[in-house]
Amino acid sequence: MNKRMIAYIQGILMICEAGLLVFPLITAVIYKETTIPAFIATIVLLCIGGTVLSLFKPKDKTIYARDGFIIVALGWILLSLFGALPYYISGEIPRFVDALFESVSGLTTTGSSILSNVEGLSKSLLFWRNFTNWIGGMGVLVFVMAVLPLSGGGGDLHLMKAEAPGPSVGKLVPKSNKTAQILYLIYIVLTVLCAIFLLIGGMPIFDSVTTAFGTAGTGGFSIYNIGIANCSPFCQTVIAVFMALFGINFNIYFLLLMKRFKDALKSEELWTYIGIIIAAVAIITINTSKQFASIGEAFHHASFQVSSLMTSTGFSTVDFNQWPELSRTILLMIMCIGACAGSTGGGFKVSRVILLVKYAAKELRSVSHPRSVRVLKFEGSRVKDETIRGTMAYFIVYVAIFCLSLVLVSFDRTDMTTNITSVISALNNMGPNLGPRLIEGATAGYGAGGPFSNFGTFNSFSKIIFILDMLFGRLEFFPLIVLFSPPRSLRQKLSNRKRL
Amino acid sequence: MNKRMIAYIQGILMICEAGLLVFPLITAVIYKETTIPAFIATIVLLCIGGTVLSLFKPKDKTIYARDGFIIVALGWILLSLFGALPYYISGEIPRFVDALFESVSGLTTTGSSILSNVEGLSKSLLFWRNFTNWIGGMGVLVFVMAVLPLSGGGGDLHLMKAEAPGPSVGKLVPKSNKTAQILYLIYIVLTVLCAIFLLIGGMPIFDSVTTAFGTAGTGGFSIYNIGIANCSPFCQTVIAVFMALFGINFNIYFLLLMKRFKDALKSEELWTYIGIIIAAVAIITINTSKQFASIGEAFHHASFQVSSLMTSTGFSTVDFNQWPELSRTILLMIMCIGACAGSTGGGFKVSRVILLVKYAAKELRSVSHPRSVRVLKFEGSRVKDETIRGTMAYFIVYVAIFCLSLVLVSFDRTDMTTNITSVISALNNMGPNLGPRLIEGATAGYGAGGPFSNFGTFNSFSKIIFILDMLFGRLEFFPLIVLFSPPRSLRQKLSNRKRL
Repeated sequence: MNKRMIAYIQGILMICEAGLLVFPLITAVIYKETTIPAFIATIVLLCIGGTVLSLFKPKDKTIYARDGFIIVALGWILLSLFGALPYYISGEIPRFVDALFESVSGLTTTGSSILSNVEGLSKSLLFWRNFTNWIGGMGVLVFVMAVLPLSGGGGDLHLMKAEAPGPSVGKLVPKSNKTAQILYLIYIVLTVLCAIFLLIGGMPIFDSVTTAFGTAGTGGFSIYNIGIANCSPFCQTVIAVFMALFGINFNIYFLLLMKRFKDALKSEELWTYIGIIIAAVAIITINTSKQFASIGEAFHHASFQVSSLMTSTGFSTVDFNQWPELSRTILLMIMCIGACAGSTGGGFKVSRVILLVKYAAKELRSVSHPRSVRVLKFEGSRVKDETIRGTMAYFIVYVAIFCLSLVLVSFDRTDMTTNITSVISALNNMGPNLGPRLIEGATAGYGAGGPFSNFGTFNSFSKIIFILDMLFGRLEFFPLIVLFSPPRSLRQKLSNRKRL
Repeated sequence: MNKRMIAYIQGILMICEAGLLVFPLITAVIYKETTIPAFIATIVLLCIGGTVLSLFKPKDKTIYARDGFIIVALGWILLSLFGALPYYISGEIPRFVDALFESVSGLTTTGSSILSNVEGLSKSLLFWRNFTNWIGGMGVLVFVMAVLPLSGGGGDLHLMKAEAPGPSVGKLVPKSNKTAQILYLIYIVLTVLCAIFLLIGGMPIFDSVTTAFGTAGTGGFSIYNIGIANCSPFCQTVIAVFMALFGINFNIYFLLLMKRFKDALKSEELWTYIGIIIAAVAIITINTSKQFASIGEAFHHASFQVSSLMTSTGFSTVDFNQWPELSRTILLMIMCIGACAGSTGGGFKVSRVILLVKYAAKELRSVSHPRSVRVLKFEGSRVKDETIRGTMAYFIVYVAIFCLSLVLVSFDRTDMTTNITSVISALNNMGPNLGPRLIEGATAGYGAGGPFSNFGTFNSFSKIIFILDMLFGRLEFFPLIVLFSPPRSLRQKLSNRKRL
């Protein structure tokens, strides 16, 4: 383990966060808000801490696989803690656990909130809140890598593997930091495009930018109490289209950029993703057509909701709890499937579903035809044994953490439906706790401010569980598990002691 | 594929079912009931069909792996169809789909019912209903094998593998039919013991025998509308102990019988099973102690409920929906875990949980320490790669069939909680749809006759889905999937055609 390198990168990360906090600080200055000292204090703390840690600059820049996970896990925890300070120091969110919840929910692009009155926050904090959605979407270490090369190629790849969503990570170009730059470039261009379209739709500039952040990170934070239900149909369409676009693997955009159209269009995951969206929209449009004035209106709301839930953003234009059972069941399914690997979306990921289904089909065949030998192929090439085993382990850990969280949260509430859907919502980085609105019978957890449920009524212990679940979900379990598990040397010592 | 052998064994199975139907017929004669013609008609039909099919007696008695699955799947479907006839012909269950539901629920040891007034059935049909619980518990092909050797050693093993619950099947003795005989001997002895204890507890003989059937098969059918909530505490304790005993892998009893105590006590699955039960009972006793007059009473009800849900029997002594959230969450967990492999209990099985947890732990370790090589061990020996892959595939198929069923059932109802819990209940062969009572908000599906919910209010399409789910759950997916999937020769033809 390269401890100096781990500390050094934490330092760099903190300085980067200080830099990112300058944007909401500027907002605070523009709107002459009382939050200015809170942002300055946080920036100063981050700069001091970051400078001290970056003094550890190591000669040996190797990052081992285990280090990669620890750097990512520690980094996300540190950024979340410091990201909570502006809410807390300004006094606008008086309890630290609530501020931390909001910070983690933002960075992990979950979009759940403990606030019942979002509009009560100052503009600069609203900006920071949605900006965390955007930062977390593409990833903080990818950002650092885009800014400066941290380690050799192998080490950076360990970091990307640990942070990026999905079962496998490919470098777009030989150098990792070049890959990171390209990813952020695509990300920025798409976000700017989204903001411009919203401006064209008549949204004020502050609202356009923050909503574009929430959309790009597929986070789902909104600056309005009622979410975006009051936006114009044009703006809703813009958001629906961009949510779906941000749910696509960014490698596809890279291939399009390189004019490798054939390669881009060969992607199995892309077609499965598009296929699921089309099928879901078609079924829900027909199923809900009676509830709307026209089939066009039904299509508008069906496609918005599907795009939002498939990418785990969590925006909504209607109360789909009023929809027929079939539509709601389909929404629940696509909610769990989630977006493509390598996108900003959450959930289980389309590629994992494809891998598991193919794996099960192969095994079923080998049960009835024991002598047949079959190879598992995905995206045109043979799937590595390692990838399959990782996907399996992910699936098992997902279920295990779900069960454990459910038991721990059950100390708090007496409403199992709310508990189940809240845990699913947190683990999948789903957004404003949509679950209870899908599954009836759960009335707890709804905020006073609007139709969106919030987590404010849970106790602190449960909030900490949800905070951990959101981080587990965003980092896909492994980094945090590695962080909390003892190193091998310690385990060996322990097992040696057992033997004595 | 050995078609003659498949037909021949179906014939033998039908003749066996005719033989088993003699017991309820005798009951009908004793109580002078009007169901006599219904039983006689069914027996005659089975004898005719069975005789015709057994004319196919093949010279080549080989059973291939694929044949094993097809024999088991077809066998269970045939037995279920004919097992439904007494209910239907007698007119006591007027719709055939309802009669089939009751028959499948019995044979798969699910214990769910479409009846709202169980006590309205005649005694002979009540006897048959609970007898199917008992027959299905150990398995119909194991029964046939115990009666006569069907094939060579390998062929019989394919049959046992296809029918027996759990990730792997071991023969107790070199000959399969000898193994089957031993299993049924243990099963009969334990059932008789259970019935004797219930008699001692003051239950009438008819009630003792039928309740022992429901307990032994961990089916949970009861001859009373209110289940066994009105039984004496002594009888409830007897049932609780025996449910737990029938949830243990029968190999353990065999080892005890052979006086191989050391081998029996080395079983990891046994200790995990006992550990989960003790932990669950302890937590629930403390958690519910305020709701009962004494800690002893809390312990009585906690242990009964844990034993019932862990083994997927489904009996209950109290309305545990009134229990605190923590207790109910733990009940939901043990409900999904289920009993030991090779027992009469349903659910996911303790050994599968152990295998998956060990597998995930191994993979997590290899993520952070890529160079470490570890071997997966279970019950003292290295786990075959095939077993792990089968368990994974089982897990994936379980989730996939759950999702598919949920979508199909959602055409019927407008209550997602009831749909989710009903599908889980059917897939895990859980019993009287306990789910809705655990998860609040679901009031649909409760029968008029008592506190137990029933499936009578679902439409026929949904009932057929539940029937398939129960069969899928009992046969652990593979046999039915093999039955419904085209043979390799056909698939090859199709793919050849595609290529042209």
